[in-house]
Amino acid sequence: MIKASIVTIGDEILIGQIVDTNSSHIAQALEEAGVKIAGMYSIADNAGEIEKTLTALLTSCDIVITTGGLGPTKDDITKATLLKISGSKGYVENPGQLEMVKKILHGRGLDILPSNMAQAMVPDRAEVIVNKLGTAPIMVFRDLLGKGTLYSLPGVPHEAVGAIPDIVEDIKKHFSLSQIVHTNVMVYGIAESALSDLIAPWEDALPQDMHLAYLPNTLTGIRLRLSTYSDNTSDTLERQKAQIAKLKAILGNKVYSDKDSNLETALGELLIRRGKTVSCAESCTGGEIAHMFTTVAGSSAYFLGSVTSYAVSVKEKVLGVDPEVIEKYGVVSSEVAAAMAEGVKKLTGSDYAVATTGLSGPSGDGINPVGTVWIGVTGPHGTITQKYCYHNDRKRNIERFAASALNLLRLYILED
Amino acid sequence: MIKASIVTIGDEILIGQIVDTNSSHIAQALEEAGVKIAGMYSIADNAGEIEKTLTALLTSCDIVITTGGLGPTKDDITKATLLKISGSKGYVENPGQLEMVKKILHGRGLDILPSNMAQAMVPDRAEVIVNKLGTAPIMVFRDLLGKGTLYSLPGVPHEAVGAIPDIVEDIKKHFSLSQIVHTNVMVYGIAESALSDLIAPWEDALPQDMHLAYLPNTLTGIRLRLSTYSDNTSDTLERQKAQIAKLKAILGNKVYSDKDSNLETALGELLIRRGKTVSCAESCTGGEIAHMFTTVAGSSAYFLGSVTSYAVSVKEKVLGVDPEVIEKYGVVSSEVAAAMAEGVKKLTGSDYAVATTGLSGPSGDGINPVGTVWIGVTGPHGTITQKYCYHNDRKRNIERFAASALNLLRLYILED
Repeated sequence: MIKASIVTIGDEILIGQIVDTNSSHIAQALEEAGVKIAGMYSIADNAGEIEKTLTALLTSCDIVITTGGLGPTKDDITKATLLKISGSKGYVENPGQLEMVKKILHGRGLDILPSNMAQAMVPDRAEVIVNKLGTAPIMVFRDLLGKGTLYSLPGVPHEAVGAIPDIVEDIKKHFSLSQIVHTNVMVYGIAESALSDLIAPWEDALPQDMHLAYLPNTLTGIRLRLSTYSDNTSDTLERQKAQIAKLKAILGNKVYSDKDSNLETALGELLIRRGKTVSCAESCTGGEIAHMFTTVAGSSAYFLGSVTSYAVSVKEKVLGVDPEVIEKYGVVSSEVAAAMAEGVKKLTGSDYAVATTGLSGPSGDGINPVGTVWIGVTGPHGTITQKYCYHNDRKRNIERFAASALNLLRLYILED
Repeated sequence: MIKASIVTIGDEILIGQIVDTNSSHIAQALEEAGVKIAGMYSIADNAGEIEKTLTALLTSCDIVITTGGLGPTKDDITKATLLKISGSKGYVENPGQLEMVKKILHGRGLDILPSNMAQAMVPDRAEVIVNKLGTAPIMVFRDLLGKGTLYSLPGVPHEAVGAIPDIVEDIKKHFSLSQIVHTNVMVYGIAESALSDLIAPWEDALPQDMHLAYLPNTLTGIRLRLSTYSDNTSDTLERQKAQIAKLKAILGNKVYSDKDSNLETALGELLIRRGKTVSCAESCTGGEIAHMFTTVAGSSAYFLGSVTSYAVSVKEKVLGVDPEVIEKYGVVSSEVAAAMAEGVKKLTGSDYAVATTGLSGPSGDGINPVGTVWIGVTGPHGTITQKYCYHNDRKRNIERFAASALNLLRLYILED
């Protein structure tokens, strides 16, 4: 099986000022293509360190993919190091990338500076894949150090991600790949350890060649993934699907999708199937639910809009929540959650609405503990409310509240 | 200088299904404490691989920090591997962690399952730091393999992050650390290469011991960071601040903060200083601006609320945008952006308001290209609008639109 390592180059990752998301995207694409990722490495903008790491990895892997260190600024030294270890005699101008540099800067209405021009210069032993999203070229070094193939990608996330299809195509052309088959199931509303105990008999009875992984996430719940290395793709997929059918019988409506998905996408598909619309009213979640709905392309087909009513006056004036209800029950209450949901449904004319009122923290209201949320859902068969308590920091509480709200809405719609 | 490596253990990272954010948080905290991060590594849930990597790193580093592989599920094998390489004779129950397991599950109203109990068992050569946020203990192995110190942290992000202060305290107690001094400046509204060229004379004249890094980010703009290794912290900080003062004279109001910050936090500080309030009306950004405002603790002091008007009917009915204006100029227009901002300002009674209307993609409106946004800002000195064009995917366009809106609002307020 073809093995690859991914190396991110940059002090900014090592000192923790930015998170490396590129490696994850690259790994996902390569894994799907049947390349095994042996490891991921982050190293400093240091020529000696880059040379040492690449040399070692080219010995143990067929492919090394680097990201970063190609920018126009003085702290970027990947290209000079690759010039050296590839045995190139010097830099040559790449006409394709130079044209792209000019096009990109022209499109932004910017002048072309000397530092931009230098971006199109590459070591003479590099093959170039033109970067259509940025000024730094994508470079391929074959038989590097007499060992493997190295792909050098830019570090800017959308440029690195944008380069992946070209890299995968090149790998498929030059290597003979084995197949890996994954099946995903998305679960919401059960803790990881409880889920593990609940499905233990099923998991223990899985065929030897199927490996199960638990992938918990605050916003999406738990992703269960079955994996099998096999060249017989369609047969393996059938066998995995048969196992998944058994799993779904155990988990019922805790399963919200049988593909790699998230709550907002699954809800969108449900609303489109039913031809219904939705709106939301957010207090403690502060726009996160609307943001989640609208990250889905095509959400304008069912998402009409939302009101973030952070101030009490906005709850009363815009959503029409009765001041006496707030006075009597408090802002964080079942009654206010219900009134907010009903208010935004009326305001937007949607079929369904969901509302949140709670305490994301760090400060509380002196009555309810931080982490408390009341969620209201309304629609054709009346209004329901549900209280949840989490014990996290502000950011995580907001995410938990939003995901719980989407899940309660999902369960409500399923009952229609 | 004390050197550390960070190792994440888990197939889920290598196949790219989750992004490793733990390493970044750990690196940041250790760097601030004066520990140099030599590298970050992600490896598989594989005993041989774990043993090989840890053995190699303990030879080249003083400290190795691992995250992951401690969960209650069958694919987690870090603890068994540490049992072996530490020369432990077996597992012992840790009373402190057992108590925490019971407390956490009790707090969630859950029964204690056998898999939960097993979480409190640790190799007999491990010292335990009780994990207050989860069931898996934090383990310390000193003089591991006769070499360095290993800290084993849970992989669940909030638990790993929650463990950092305890780890840093332990490191400070057991190692003699050198100091590193960083100064950050946050810049918005200029491309990286233009910035590099603009400040080149200043950068070239920097003292030898100061290193500059560029850290670009869609949501926060470019962070410029000066770093110096020095035990004379206060003197170094003074010298860095003198350089930063020169830099700010070059960049003017493109600098929005002289600490590690973001636009929403800087805006919040500005609004609190002025005693003013804000609201927003979002179309294409779909709640992202409200979400950004409300991730800041204490934002209820100045953020009144928002309307996400995804449907045209919501723009008209809730925000009071004149249907004739929409008819005449189109939804994506200066006029609609202005009317939305004015509408939400009136609705909420805020001092300032910002609005967005544009095309985040993938589908367009047949008139404007995808990536076009009109931003409107209104306040005491009238309404301004500005058009921006970006060329990204949906997610990145939404982020760019939202950050541009916050920046335009910031510039408007600064002129008041």
